[in-house]
This record gives sequence, C-alpha cells and structure tokens, in this order.
Amino acid sequence: MTRTIVASATREVVIGFDQPFCVIGERINPTGRKKLAAEMIEGNFDTVIKDALEQVAAGATMLDVNAGVTSVNPNETEPALLVQTLEIVQGLVDVPLSIDSSVTAAIEAALKVAKGRPLVNSVTGEEDKLEAILPLCKKYDVPVVAISNDETGISMDPDVRFAVAKKIVERAMDHGIKPEDIVVDPLVMPIGALGDAGRQVFALLYRLRNELKVNTTCGLSNISFGLPHRHGINAGFIPMVIGAGMTSAIMNPCRPQEMEAVRAANVLNGTDANCGNWIMTYRDYKPAEGGPAATSAAPLAAGGRRGGRAARAGAGAATE
Amino acid sequence: MTRTIVASATREVVIGFDQPFCVIGERINPTGRKKLAAEMIEGNFDTVIKDALEQVAAGATMLDVNAGVTSVNPNETEPALLVQTLEIVQGLVDVPLSIDSSVTAAIEAALKVAKGRPLVNSVTGEEDKLEAILPLCKKYDVPVVAISNDETGISMDPDVRFAVAKKIVERAMDHGIKPEDIVVDPLVMPIGALGDAGRQVFALLYRLRNELKVNTTCGLSNISFGLPHRHGINAGFIPMVIGAGMTSAIMNPCRPQEMEAVRAANVLNGTDANCGNWIMTYRDYKPAEGGPAATSAAPLAAGGRRGGRAARAGAGAATE
Repeated sequence: MTRTIVASATREVVIGFDQPFCVIGERINPTGRKKLAAEMIEGNFDTVIKDALEQVAAGATMLDVNAGVTSVNPNETEPALLVQTLEIVQGLVDVPLSIDSSVTAAIEAALKVAKGRPLVNSVTGEEDKLEAILPLCKKYDVPVVAISNDETGISMDPDVRFAVAKKIVERAMDHGIKPEDIVVDPLVMPIGALGDAGRQVFALLYRLRNELKVNTTCGLSNISFGLPHRHGINAGFIPMVIGAGMTSAIMNPCRPQEMEAVRAANVLNGTDANCGNWIMTYRDYKPAEGGPAATSAAPLAAGGRRGGRAARAGAGAATE
Repeated sequence: MTRTIVASATREVVIGFDQPFCVIGERINPTGRKKLAAEMIEGNFDTVIKDALEQVAAGATMLDVNAGVTSVNPNETEPALLVQTLEIVQGLVDVPLSIDSSVTAAIEAALKVAKGRPLVNSVTGEEDKLEAILPLCKKYDVPVVAISNDETGISMDPDVRFAVAKKIVERAMDHGIKPEDIVVDPLVMPIGALGDAGRQVFALLYRLRNELKVNTTCGLSNISFGLPHRHGINAGFIPMVIGAGMTSAIMNPCRPQEMEAVRAANVLNGTDANCGNWIMTYRDYKPAEGGPAATSAAPLAAGGRRGGRAARAGAGAATE
C-alpha cells in the first residue's frame, strides 16, 4: 500500500488509498490576491496568520505555503519571504506544510528551516525542473508533487500526461527517491471549457492508482472555473475523484460545502472509521427549512446568517 | 452502448452510460407512509397528485408508482389500486413510469393500462419471481429492475451478488429479453452498519458496467440510514456511484442537495452538454452568507427561510 508520509514538528500524516482524504489548504498564496501580496511585501502577516488558523480550524490536513508576491526578480526576494512566511505558519499551527514555489532557491531555503517532513510543491516533467528539484528532495528526504506537463506544455491527451507522470517517477527513482514520495498532479482542466475534463481525470487517476500506484493531488477548484455556483461543481467533483483514487487535493477548506463532500466521501470510501468524524461533525446538524424544489435562486438577504450549508457570497470566485 | 428505453405516452427517455443520470422519483409509495396509505385506501389521491407534480417539477426523469397499502391479501386489492394510481399519474404528468409491486397480478394489471414503455420494478433471482415476472416483461416488451438477491437472501459477498445479477440477465435472455432491458440493482446497504458498503457497491458497479454491460439502479437513500445529516451522505454518494457507472437511482428528487449532486455529476461525467442544464439551473444562484467554518451546527431558526442549499428540517428521515 502506497504511503506518503508528511509531518509537522510533532505530527505525522499519511497520504494513502486507505487514509482519509488529505486536504491541503490553498489559502496562503498571494497569486491572484493583490491585497495579500501587498501585505506580505510590507512584512504584514496578519492575513497569513488568519488564513493559517482558519484553515486548520476548518479541517485542513496540511497547509500549502506560497510567497510568490512578484514576478520581477523572484530569485532575489522570494527565498527570504518564503522562509519568513513558513516560519510564521509552523510556529502557529501544527500541521504538515507544503512548500510551494517555482523558485528553486526559495524551495531549498524553506527546506532548510522546515520542521518535520514537508511536501515540495512542485516538480514538472521539464528537464531543468527535474534536475533542479529532485536532488533537493533526495537531499532533504521529502516527498514532492509531480505535475504531469513538460517542455511541450500540458497535453490534452491523457495518455501523454500519464507518460509524463511515469517519466517523473522513473527519474525520481534514478535519484534514489521512492515512488511513494511522488504525489502526481494529473492536471485538472475547467469542465466549462473542456467537457471531457472530468472523465479524463477519472481515467488518469485509475491508471495512476493501478499502474503507477502513486498518490495523487490536484488544484481542485480549477474544474469549476467560469461556471456559476462553483461550490456545487467542486462538491460533486470531490467524491468522484476520491472514488477514482485521488488521495489529496489543494483546495479551500474554509468552504463548508466542499468540506462536507470530503467528509461524506471519506465515510463512503471506508476511511472514516465507524463514521466517527461524520457523526461528530453533524450529529446536531439542523438544516434550515426549505421548499421541496428550493434550487431556484430565491433572493437571500446577505450577511448575518450562520452555519448550515451556507457559503460565502460571491460563488464565482473559489479562492479569494 | 447499452441503452434502456422507457417512455411515457409521448416522451422517450434513454437510460445509458452516455446519458444524464436517470432520477426515478420514489415518493408515490405508501410503504412507511401511513397517512398516504390511509388516503389511498379511502380513494383520496390528493397526496399522490401533489407528489407527482412536485417530483416532476423538481427534475425527476421518471416516477416510481407503488400502491402497496396493505400486507393483508394484497393479491385481491393491489391490482385495482395500482391501476387507479397509475392512471391518475399518467394522466397528470408526461414522464415514463416505473411499475412497482411485489404482486405479480398488480404488475400485469398495470402493464395492461400503462402508456408508453414503463419499467417494471422488480424481479429478483428467486426462481418463482423469475418465472412470474420475466414472461410478463417479454409479453409487454418492457424493461425490468433486477435485484441481486435470491432465495438465500442478500449476500454480503459482492461476488455472489454479481453472480445473481448475471443469472437474472441470462434467464431473461432465455425468455427472449435483451440484456439492455435489465436494469440491475446491486443492493445498497447502510454505511453506518457496514463500513464497506460504499466500496462494495463501487466494485460491483464496475463489474456490472464492464462485464455484464448493463444499466443499474438502487434505492439510493439506504446508504445513509441511521446517520445524522443523511442528505450530506446521499449527496456525496451520488457522484461516487455515477463515477462508478450507475445510470439511475430511485430517490427523492424534492431534495435540493441530492439533485444538485446529480446535476454536478452529470456535468463532470460529460452528460450535461456544454454544462447547459447546470448553467440554466444555477446562473442566478446566490448562496447565503456564511462563516468560513460554518459546518458547526449553530442553532438555526426553523421555518420561513427559502431557497439556497436549505433542505427540510428533520434530516434523519430521507423519505417522508
């Protein structure tokens, strides 16, 4: 059984087919969050702290940490900022972290100070990436997310994406890294643009699980990009990918609908022993009164109401 | 490609792997609904009419019709009552019907008056059932739900359940009925009692789809029996069974959370062309404001609030 082990200073988490789905909180990432980027540049980590605490409280298994505030000379500024951000987060919460950067020097700087066993996010099938990142993973004995694209870009052919994943796993083995330390991201496309995006991922996951026998992850909310009521699509996608063999996702754990889908899928996948987590979470759950066909978009007063199935207004944006 | 064709007086519906999930409305069934049973015995069909209209309005593809009001001499009373109920329903709504009875004479009486091409619900692997129901299906050229139990009961071994399904398909062929007119119910157990119930069904669905190549159905809400917040479990189960190859379910279409899961899974399974139904249904969807970790069961005032993700109070009961 494939087991990818990650750890914080004191807590070990196993990613695996027989484990509860690993929710990697995506919020600490200034990409597309101008306000957060501006704060981090100023040395203001209030939002980072808030996002770390909220995501863990909402049930994140791990947290992704990204400090890519600029595309101008990131090699100069990102290592120090990523280290600073990582140290703040690991001083605050005791969950394993995912070190997320496209800058190799930033990844290495973060690996030097990270407690436990972090996940590196990410390597691709591109030659220079492979030869930059895999030696680091070997040196620091950490697992890595392998994104199934290469120099030619993202293939629309799932067989090519599988071949890229296989190449990365084989190259990692050349570097002395075990396949269980490769977490493959099969790449999720927006279903609104590519009607076959779901079935492609399910088919890829089946092969990744049964042929390569690796753990998997994805940027989950990509699937619903451009569609109305994205949380509904995301919440349907989660049980489907879990059923198809996906073992983790980079997602927003502060979304009740998505997290409910994760919890339900854990029950149904047999990884929530005796439905213990489900019963604990929902034993006092009282849905509000609704009509028998209450899917119509009756206007609702914004603000004020708490709990239940509610999600934040602004369904168009799955992050931020 | 397996295509099970059902029809109302004027509308044909295809059940198949490349079709939107077929939602068979379960409400017109006095089993466990004492008030409805009493009404039907009195010749009062107000609730039947309401249930028929509401289920179709909520998006049911088909309606199941059951008139089993008594366990005392059903052979004498059920045929006439089922015919009466069926005629009322088919006079009211133009969707294909499922004729649901354990009384062979009631099924035949209903088949004589049914418009279009109804589904018979059901036959089992029991010898007397097979020889009573299959000749009727051949005579009236209608498809039938095949429940995968036999004289020995419901096996806990999925391989035995598969073997029973295979036996029914083969026996049907002996009667001149094509496999595409057999819709197998693999039998869904409560996950709260049997932690492996989900994985059993997924594995069975995989074999039913790939080896027997048949359409499938189930009594969907069985999965969540005994658990809190059943709609959440049901809504997670729907995308998982659809991903595993299930093509229909007998369920309550008046539950917004479950129907949203069906619509999302159709999008993700590539059977909602251009996401058209999703966009039509949710383009103006505005979720209510909620906190970032709003899964806690904050007390909610019952009654009054409409729309959105709300479902009726009393999550313990998935029907009635």
